[in-house]
Amino acid sequence: MADAFSFSLQGTDGAARLGEFRTPHGVVQTPAFMPVGTQGSVKAMRHRDLEEAGAQIILGNTYHLYLRPGDQLIARRGGLHRFIGWPHPILTDSGGYQVFSLAARRKIAEEGAEFRSHLDGSLHLLTPESATDIQARLGSDIAMVLDECLAFPATQDEAARSMARSLRWAARCRARLEQIRDGQARDVGATNPGQAQFGIVQGGVFQDLRDQSAEATFGIGFEGYAIGGLSVGEPIDLMYSVVGETARRLPEAQPRYLMGTGTPEDLVECVARGIDMFDCVLPTRNGRTGQLFTSEGRLNIRNAKYAEDEGPVDSRCACYTCRTHSRAYLRHLYMAGEMTAGALNTLHNLSFYLDTMRRIRDAISLRTFDRFRQEFLRSVSRLSLDS
Amino acid sequence: MADAFSFSLQGTDGAARLGEFRTPHGVVQTPAFMPVGTQGSVKAMRHRDLEEAGAQIILGNTYHLYLRPGDQLIARRGGLHRFIGWPHPILTDSGGYQVFSLAARRKIAEEGAEFRSHLDGSLHLLTPESATDIQARLGSDIAMVLDECLAFPATQDEAARSMARSLRWAARCRARLEQIRDGQARDVGATNPGQAQFGIVQGGVFQDLRDQSAEATFGIGFEGYAIGGLSVGEPIDLMYSVVGETARRLPEAQPRYLMGTGTPEDLVECVARGIDMFDCVLPTRNGRTGQLFTSEGRLNIRNAKYAEDEGPVDSRCACYTCRTHSRAYLRHLYMAGEMTAGALNTLHNLSFYLDTMRRIRDAISLRTFDRFRQEFLRSVSRLSLDS
Repeated sequence: MADAFSFSLQGTDGAARLGEFRTPHGVVQTPAFMPVGTQGSVKAMRHRDLEEAGAQIILGNTYHLYLRPGDQLIARRGGLHRFIGWPHPILTDSGGYQVFSLAARRKIAEEGAEFRSHLDGSLHLLTPESATDIQARLGSDIAMVLDECLAFPATQDEAARSMARSLRWAARCRARLEQIRDGQARDVGATNPGQAQFGIVQGGVFQDLRDQSAEATFGIGFEGYAIGGLSVGEPIDLMYSVVGETARRLPEAQPRYLMGTGTPEDLVECVARGIDMFDCVLPTRNGRTGQLFTSEGRLNIRNAKYAEDEGPVDSRCACYTCRTHSRAYLRHLYMAGEMTAGALNTLHNLSFYLDTMRRIRDAISLRTFDRFRQEFLRSVSRLSLDS
Repeated sequence: MADAFSFSLQGTDGAARLGEFRTPHGVVQTPAFMPVGTQGSVKAMRHRDLEEAGAQIILGNTYHLYLRPGDQLIARRGGLHRFIGWPHPILTDSGGYQVFSLAARRKIAEEGAEFRSHLDGSLHLLTPESATDIQARLGSDIAMVLDECLAFPATQDEAARSMARSLRWAARCRARLEQIRDGQARDVGATNPGQAQFGIVQGGVFQDLRDQSAEATFGIGFEGYAIGGLSVGEPIDLMYSVVGETARRLPEAQPRYLMGTGTPEDLVECVARGIDMFDCVLPTRNGRTGQLFTSEGRLNIRNAKYAEDEGPVDSRCACYTCRTHSRAYLRHLYMAGEMTAGALNTLHNLSFYLDTMRRIRDAISLRTFDRFRQEFLRSVSRLSLDS
């Protein structure tokens, strides 16, 4: 069943890669963007909205699902797919990122991370083994190893020590998954025997550490490889450089996932550097606060200039929001505090992101990615349309 | 253009009536339920959700739209239908009910109601003429006259005085609409020349006052007639009795609208007494707080007994929520504070209400309404499924 996951590279254009991976719950075309479904729901979206927007895979947060409703409850319901009614692929993170974000409420040691729940203050221990077990119960199609999340900035020494611990944790995660796969841990109650596991390359912004981490993580051996610990405050050019150099050192035959990134421009730039998979809360979170991504730049729907604007959010977008409503109406809904504002805005933003991924895949397939990239960056600038 | 509105009675079964009315924006089959779209949006719903659930007409609140984004802005955008992107019929209330609910923030006189905005404290005057003008600018398909809303309980004397004032206001509303129709008030900027206007019968729980009000309102002459001032705290049997007796005195050839009611049982009971149209916030408001209506009774999705319940909300319901999700997942979404909980719950509740109206129409058409009513009241009891 470990063969249930496979990746095939279908073409390249420069460093950009076109491919697809197979999971027990279906195929995902890459480069792919994964909407974030923190608590088993992509905020403000119904599953069919995601399908309509073109989402092929979503991400679930292990920390949140472990605390509520609980991985044991979800396992009793047959796993996360069945529990939430989403029949397509799901990737889960390890829970580490959220635990590290708890700051004063957590304590890190070699064994793992001890933390207090943000919900009720109860004490929990997240170890490489328990993070693997929890994800096995959730039954996602892709599980992530538990890694240590380094704050930025960090010294090279701090980054080296943290990277080394992440490697030891990665080996423990893999060993635990092997036990589960070999039937030596039936009491775990795994719900998806075809679950794949990705390693995570760390090392901060120090390329020699990144290179060591990439090599050692590959040495452990996973179905795919992620780049973690970026988009945490480092300059954008430095991030792009680390992404490009690290991606070059990852095996060609397996998918590469850049965690927690980014803006539409970041997606294009990092595809150009060999990344296959992305996740980010930007399209959903910004949708709820009224910031909309368009083919001509960003706009904030609260701006008074849209009060009588009869045009759609983006005249080049075919989503339900753009087909049905004017900027004037969307602004009214936002100002009036209607929750439908968040839903319509999120639907547009996700449609824009997922449509961008489709255009990226088309361009790689036609070997016109570089031209697409130049035009995209010219039009979808970081500039605001509001002024 | 006053002929743009017409009602045809297509059959009866006892006092229950099957019919339809035509408006400039389409046909509505009666008995009909109108979801409440207070600020130009039915809370938590997208328009296509309403269409899918079977809504043929929605209600907009004049008070809210007048204050934000403003009837003048909506008129400049071509009227409410165009502004909100809903091409089907819309009924607007007069704004009176909300103004009367402001209590300490309003002052009522013969001229009209002076009130302070709940948004910014600004001072406004709502008169029969301005309520008519505002609704003419909004361009709803059915406008309501401004009436005085009596608190319950009230003495017969208070009810009589209030009913008399409502009649004088109704005559002023009608006179104003005639001016607009005759082209004597072009500066109003009416956006729907085919707009109809309904009178409202008042008189509290005093049947002789109700009879007088019905006769005098009919004397003024409207395209339809509403019964107002019920569901304000009076005993349910008294309400049913006033509805039945009052409906009998309204003209057969025009639609009868019971304002602000009610539970699923109320809809069936009042159709049995000759009512054609309803509106109520119950399905939407209760959806957001987790109370769900089902064919076997009500349930509150927060109840711990649903935490591992894999069944749908209502096994006899074909809505998206019931087709896709379990009670367990809906409970999780609610407990986790996901806004999608409100959307999925509201979609179910509205589907249940609108499906009930379809079943009512079928039963009248087959002349089996009385049997339907008995069975419906037996199964959809007021009892809770939670215990």
